[in-house]
Amino acid sequence: MQVSVLRKVLDANDLIAEENRKEFDAHGCFVVNLMSAPGSGKTAILERTLRALDGRLTAAVIEGDVMGTLDADRLLPLGVPVVQINTDPLFGGECHLDARMIRNALSALPLDGVDVVFIENVGNLVCPAEFSVGEDRKVMVLSVAEGEDKPLKYPLMFRVSDLLLLNKTDLLNYLDFDLPQFRANAAHVNPGLPIVEFSARTGQGFERWVDWLLREVAERRGRCGAI
Amino acid sequence: MQVSVLRKVLDANDLIAEENRKEFDAHGCFVVNLMSAPGSGKTAILERTLRALDGRLTAAVIEGDVMGTLDADRLLPLGVPVVQINTDPLFGGECHLDARMIRNALSALPLDGVDVVFIENVGNLVCPAEFSVGEDRKVMVLSVAEGEDKPLKYPLMFRVSDLLLLNKTDLLNYLDFDLPQFRANAAHVNPGLPIVEFSARTGQGFERWVDWLLREVAERRGRCGAI
Repeated sequence: MQVSVLRKVLDANDLIAEENRKEFDAHGCFVVNLMSAPGSGKTAILERTLRALDGRLTAAVIEGDVMGTLDADRLLPLGVPVVQINTDPLFGGECHLDARMIRNALSALPLDGVDVVFIENVGNLVCPAEFSVGEDRKVMVLSVAEGEDKPLKYPLMFRVSDLLLLNKTDLLNYLDFDLPQFRANAAHVNPGLPIVEFSARTGQGFERWVDWLLREVAERRGRCGAI
Repeated sequence: MQVSVLRKVLDANDLIAEENRKEFDAHGCFVVNLMSAPGSGKTAILERTLRALDGRLTAAVIEGDVMGTLDADRLLPLGVPVVQINTDPLFGGECHLDARMIRNALSALPLDGVDVVFIENVGNLVCPAEFSVGEDRKVMVLSVAEGEDKPLKYPLMFRVSDLLLLNKTDLLNYLDFDLPQFRANAAHVNPGLPIVEFSARTGQGFERWVDWLLREVAERRGRCGAI
């Protein structure tokens, strides 16, 4: 009974995600769904990424938070269009973005001429992995402060992701984080998952991430041109 | 429509939580619902806490994870009864414990002579705050690596908590975490929330936490004796 209800919710979500997908395609936008636990550094990564892309790609951002506009406020000085979604109105708020929330946000986000849309999901390693929103790629962030066991405890998030940014590597000297064990745990769940050792603070791994974005956007253009 | 469905789910949960409460009361157990984001250090805190309580209080643990028994396995050497709940590997799994899961776990957990039951919730700052499980107190853990903005972004968790362990203070020298700003943010959401600066690694704040536990257990015994 509970299973069939959940299945219906996810099926309904997928239909709306497909509509979003068509709208993004119509504007030629490459869309990244950026997911992580709270405080892994998604917004810091976006700040640095938007600066690095300036003049190379035109970006827009959809910010998802239970409450408030803190993350959107941080990005406003960068001059990139930002729409904030708050999932809060009911009780404690929804713990993830779904396709309908993105659909509603799109009415406020001009997509003409936008190359890449970053969707910063609510901080949570469980439910965001279950709800597609019409993205091209799911990118997850894990902070090394969270521990090397996370792939085994939150497997779906690691399984659905196309790229992992292993953030805050500048803290590795002060933690017991076991990097080889983490790589083994991640490979156990998703053997094909590329892992970028990353620091939004020092810039480690940043070039590889920006190269990945530029390549994905170019490939997407190629696919659209071929249609 | 969505609101009324959610209200019904929470009302049904509260009824079962009340049954759990009665069972805990019948055995004279003080119950802590331990909540945090993934990787904040709940299990490390439990390891050290169980060692510190040894010979002073009799403890039992209910471990909640989406998948696996990693945390339960870490606690087994401490000789304390541990029951592992997996939140059902349907799709991505449930992102929180609810009262029914605890009810089911209780059949496997002998409560006679147990002074304190620790329930380690699934790592998530949103939904666990919405679901009571029959606990006496909600204790939340926040790692300083997660940033000082969290009370404003996940307000319900901070609002419902009775105590906050601000963990990993040993990392403060290597982070930009603004402690006064964090205290102001937390006070904005829940002015009465006691905050213990804490490190499961170095032991900072540990005495205050253990004193709090001993006092709460004693007060609970007093209340039960008065009934």
